[in-house]
Amino acid sequence: MKTYYDCLPCFIRQSLDAAREITDDQEIIGRSLKRVIREVSEFDLRMMPPEMGQVIHRIIREETGNPDPYKYKKDKSTEMALELAKDASRRIKAAGDPFETALRFAIAGNIMDFAFAETWNRGRIEDSFNKAEKHPVDSAMCEKLKNRIKKASSILFIGDNTGETVFDRLFIEEFPGSAPVCYAVKQSPVINDATEEDALKAGLDKVAKIINNGTDAPGTVLRQCSKEFLGHFYGSEIVIAKGQANFETLTGADREVFLLTQVKCRVIAEHYNFNVGDWIITTNI
Amino acid sequence: MKTYYDCLPCFIRQSLDAAREITDDQEIIGRSLKRVIREVSEFDLRMMPPEMGQVIHRIIREETGNPDPYKYKKDKSTEMALELAKDASRRIKAAGDPFETALRFAIAGNIMDFAFAETWNRGRIEDSFNKAEKHPVDSAMCEKLKNRIKKASSILFIGDNTGETVFDRLFIEEFPGSAPVCYAVKQSPVINDATEEDALKAGLDKVAKIINNGTDAPGTVLRQCSKEFLGHFYGSEIVIAKGQANFETLTGADREVFLLTQVKCRVIAEHYNFNVGDWIITTNI
Repeated sequence: MKTYYDCLPCFIRQSLDAAREITDDQEIIGRSLKRVIREVSEFDLRMMPPEMGQVIHRIIREETGNPDPYKYKKDKSTEMALELAKDASRRIKAAGDPFETALRFAIAGNIMDFAFAETWNRGRIEDSFNKAEKHPVDSAMCEKLKNRIKKASSILFIGDNTGETVFDRLFIEEFPGSAPVCYAVKQSPVINDATEEDALKAGLDKVAKIINNGTDAPGTVLRQCSKEFLGHFYGSEIVIAKGQANFETLTGADREVFLLTQVKCRVIAEHYNFNVGDWIITTNI
Repeated sequence: MKTYYDCLPCFIRQSLDAAREITDDQEIIGRSLKRVIREVSEFDLRMMPPEMGQVIHRIIREETGNPDPYKYKKDKSTEMALELAKDASRRIKAAGDPFETALRFAIAGNIMDFAFAETWNRGRIEDSFNKAEKHPVDSAMCEKLKNRIKKASSILFIGDNTGETVFDRLFIEEFPGSAPVCYAVKQSPVINDATEEDALKAGLDKVAKIINNGTDAPGTVLRQCSKEFLGHFYGSEIVIAKGQANFETLTGADREVFLLTQVKCRVIAEHYNFNVGDWIITTNI
């Protein structure tokens, strides 16, 4: 998805929120903000919003001198997710359709997103999980994905946020068939996106081979990804991608991708005729 | 009031909303937006937010090639205000304290503000007037102002938005004593701030001498104002100023000013320990 005019003030708002999340030093906050605004003034709107996110968070990491400013919060969110996963696991096992229920928890887990500060509080997270079995989703698409997984010979699962990864693990555990799964994360930290270290803490190595995409961009910016990752992306029979930044960056991809996300942004909602708050299971092609 | 970091994304958001109010031409909208973002990246935070507003709206007038882009909406808001004023006038005449009631309607009228797009809809405007007699205000300050006006020899009343001016007229009609009143407006258009032409349409000439402040800045940026205006500002026994931009620009003034406004901005609310939605009657000194 291209960048809309509405994204520009939102980038600046997000960068201010992000800098404040990381430091109380008003000078650092101000310096980051001014650099971000200068970058935004020159941003090419044909680029995708997560590419601007990449620039913003590089600036914030540079200005704060911290290569992984969300580390503490990422670890806390993995802890919280592991705690919540006990109940989710019970509910999945007890469900009539454990695959669909696990998929629902995987989308519920997409609430653990620090790019949208207002979504990150315990109440909202618990609310997202409480409604996991009841929130409307496209059950036909869910069934289609299940049947495709059953017959597949290889699967690439592209993760999104730390914490959320725990629920991706529960979902992968319910995959029918016996296709090997690769779980892709970021090469290095950006916001609270999962890296290999984060995925390991969530136990993804128990259900998949963890790989990284060679970048520090939110979502999956294919033109930046490593050859190894692109080999998996184009070589796997099924690709599943989680979260809104993957949705934005992969809807234009030149292969089929199953996209699972919560819709958190009004601009994306309007562009694709969704509503903010929708839980999406779709394909790009 | 100085500019806060939070003002910067808000300036950019407002400029996008403003450009869209004025034109559907996406190229003009984009060009204005990028120019505003560049200006914001260089903005000196020691300046007051309305000074950035002045720069933003100059850019928008230049890019749209329209010296008074809100003219149609200003005229519509005067028409609406004249219509609403009939009922307000009846309610003021019937009130136990017509001065306080007229003051309340003058503050209610401050809702007619295009700088905050979300406040401009008929429902919200009517709601503001419906609650005019009931909304909490500082009645002791109201009484103090009444007593001061009664004894005054000269009064400067600094207006704000077109439309709102109609209710300022009703308020001035209830002034006790016999002090002559000057009503100050902008020299040339900025957003929907009243100019001399707009004040005339609202009938301000029937209750005051209309003057302009020599600028196109929202609020009252004293260092930009004409000598004639400054003569009135420092020479009048009482100065009353309406609206949030006057509040921002005159709280630091080196003479007493009675400030009457609705609080519409979270940053201002936090800075002064108000709540968004408060109706304020206060003095700067």
